[in-house]
Amino acid sequence: MRELKVDLGDRSYPIYIGEGLLAEASLYFDKHSISKKSPVLIISDATVAGTYLLPLQQQLESAGYRVATAVVPAGESSKSLQQLQELVTVALEAGLDRKSTIVALGGGVVGDLAGFAAAAYMRGIRFVQIPTTILAHDSSVGGKVAVNHPLAKNIIGAFHQPELVLYDLNTLQTLPPREVRAGLAEVVKHGLIWDETFVQWCVAHAEKLLSLEPEALGYALYNGCSVKAEVVSRDEKENDLRAILNLGHTIGHAIEAVAGYNEILHGEAIAIGMIGSARLGVQLGAPQEVYTVTKQVLEACGLPTRLPAHYDVDAIMEAMMHDKKFQEGSMVFVVPTAIGTVQIRSDVQASMVRDIVEQLKRED
Amino acid sequence: MRELKVDLGDRSYPIYIGEGLLAEASLYFDKHSISKKSPVLIISDATVAGTYLLPLQQQLESAGYRVATAVVPAGESSKSLQQLQELVTVALEAGLDRKSTIVALGGGVVGDLAGFAAAAYMRGIRFVQIPTTILAHDSSVGGKVAVNHPLAKNIIGAFHQPELVLYDLNTLQTLPPREVRAGLAEVVKHGLIWDETFVQWCVAHAEKLLSLEPEALGYALYNGCSVKAEVVSRDEKENDLRAILNLGHTIGHAIEAVAGYNEILHGEAIAIGMIGSARLGVQLGAPQEVYTVTKQVLEACGLPTRLPAHYDVDAIMEAMMHDKKFQEGSMVFVVPTAIGTVQIRSDVQASMVRDIVEQLKRED
Repeated sequence: MRELKVDLGDRSYPIYIGEGLLAEASLYFDKHSISKKSPVLIISDATVAGTYLLPLQQQLESAGYRVATAVVPAGESSKSLQQLQELVTVALEAGLDRKSTIVALGGGVVGDLAGFAAAAYMRGIRFVQIPTTILAHDSSVGGKVAVNHPLAKNIIGAFHQPELVLYDLNTLQTLPPREVRAGLAEVVKHGLIWDETFVQWCVAHAEKLLSLEPEALGYALYNGCSVKAEVVSRDEKENDLRAILNLGHTIGHAIEAVAGYNEILHGEAIAIGMIGSARLGVQLGAPQEVYTVTKQVLEACGLPTRLPAHYDVDAIMEAMMHDKKFQEGSMVFVVPTAIGTVQIRSDVQASMVRDIVEQLKRED
Repeated sequence: MRELKVDLGDRSYPIYIGEGLLAEASLYFDKHSISKKSPVLIISDATVAGTYLLPLQQQLESAGYRVATAVVPAGESSKSLQQLQELVTVALEAGLDRKSTIVALGGGVVGDLAGFAAAAYMRGIRFVQIPTTILAHDSSVGGKVAVNHPLAKNIIGAFHQPELVLYDLNTLQTLPPREVRAGLAEVVKHGLIWDETFVQWCVAHAEKLLSLEPEALGYALYNGCSVKAEVVSRDEKENDLRAILNLGHTIGHAIEAVAGYNEILHGEAIAIGMIGSARLGVQLGAPQEVYTVTKQVLEACGLPTRLPAHYDVDAIMEAMMHDKKFQEGSMVFVVPTAIGTVQIRSDVQASMVRDIVEQLKRED
């Protein structure tokens, strides 16, 4: 079992990564003084709940916790204010009070939704994350929680740090292969922005990661979380440094915005976005290997590196203009300068980005 | 012009109280470096907007601010997640970004709603309060913002401090007399929990307050805000001390919950609640003057001190059980021990409270 501390002063918390943690969840709850008098609400989605909700509920109840549950539909559409309203109904009917805890059992969608529910319910109650996807290693660090608005993703939210994160590697074994690959995109991203050695390790161990070999997976998640924790602890509220975590996301989010429902996964979109950023980096003076290594590691993880031809470049550019990473009208872009190092540039012209997006459709 | 600092470390902010501040709002915005590049969104309600929105908008625009506006229906029903969703639509369409500011122009409802919008939009943008009621002096200090859920008031919210509060006494001149009286209830409450001298001053100056004499009104609001600022600066997140601000609110909220629409105003309900708390205090050993002076000052301000006979005591008790001030099932009550001093008791039996509520219907 690996333990990582996210260092945020009096909001610091640990991430536990290992096999079989779900079966002893109550030990961790006890350790962190989760209240047994006030009800705990576990929020999960229909996919995850079928396998993991009842065992977790029973394990906690057998240890004396009062447990209520809520299951939301799987998928991004659950990240809505309507769903939040329904969860608050459940919380009120279950008698959750100020000492209660909300537990997110699931991937990024459940983490974001349940986290915002915990942030807003009674102006903030305690929150535990139990991620069940590789992708969620990213959202489990840093306390960013949110729901969507029909016009923009993650636009209504908060910074709300969990009490602890329980990362049970066993829950990842049932992930569909495509989700595994997409999840690795954020792992790779953490290497690309911070740690060249880890990028090389990912290239060398990609096969083990794809086959969910627990030791490699635990190491990769620990490293991915470590990079994010380091960045977030230096800049909790995204004033400056934290923006480097958006490598590949400006183009990636725009691709997601114009894609049809379930056509592309977040990790796939940001993989393409990271290729775009690498091309941009080279164009702005970074060595050619920034592009070749980025492509190498993404391909090793089975991730797409080209934009499918049917995507409309105008629509992608239009979507980019609505991204909340635009400050006062100027275009902010995270650009690699070497493998493991990025810079934030605010001088990137839209026309240059447009050329890059065009290039993403072509063979290099 | 009076200026009061709410002392909350790096979230400290000033409250400016005086006549004619709205006409020079841009000077205060400039002083606090509100962004002129990013759009400002003024949120108001239909009642207030008619008189004050356009002048404020024009004043800010003439000073170079980019201003968008949103007008919500007057009344508590606007404090909903649905309304929040609509405001976010307006914010997105107006191009609000992370450096933007939301301005609340109105009473407590607008302050709570606009404040929560500012807290949640892009996970938190800047916020300016321009209260236009006496009651809002209370909500303008402390950063508590929230919307309602059909099952509970203020249950979905945040702590989000404003950058500044602009309290223009001229905007209070158009308040209906009943709103003036109800607003004074929270002013009086701040005296009752903290400052006996101020309670005596309120008794002596009640007529001037009721006739909205600017010097008396400014002094009363300054003192009311000062008490609240002092309490909040010692306990921002309501861990302990801040709970004393709930004097009269446990019974008051329950009365509001069972009242018909617009039947009773918040200030009227908590006036009755404070009478209940005073009775409870005397019953628990406080001197009789706790009751007589509480009654005297509330009557001087034209506030009700008896519960109308048609209110159902069972329904009030039931509503009290849903109040979010209940922790882990036990009943927490703010009880005066002298004029200007209260204590938080967690040992108050429901049967005792029931007797008090019954008594509230009777002449003493």
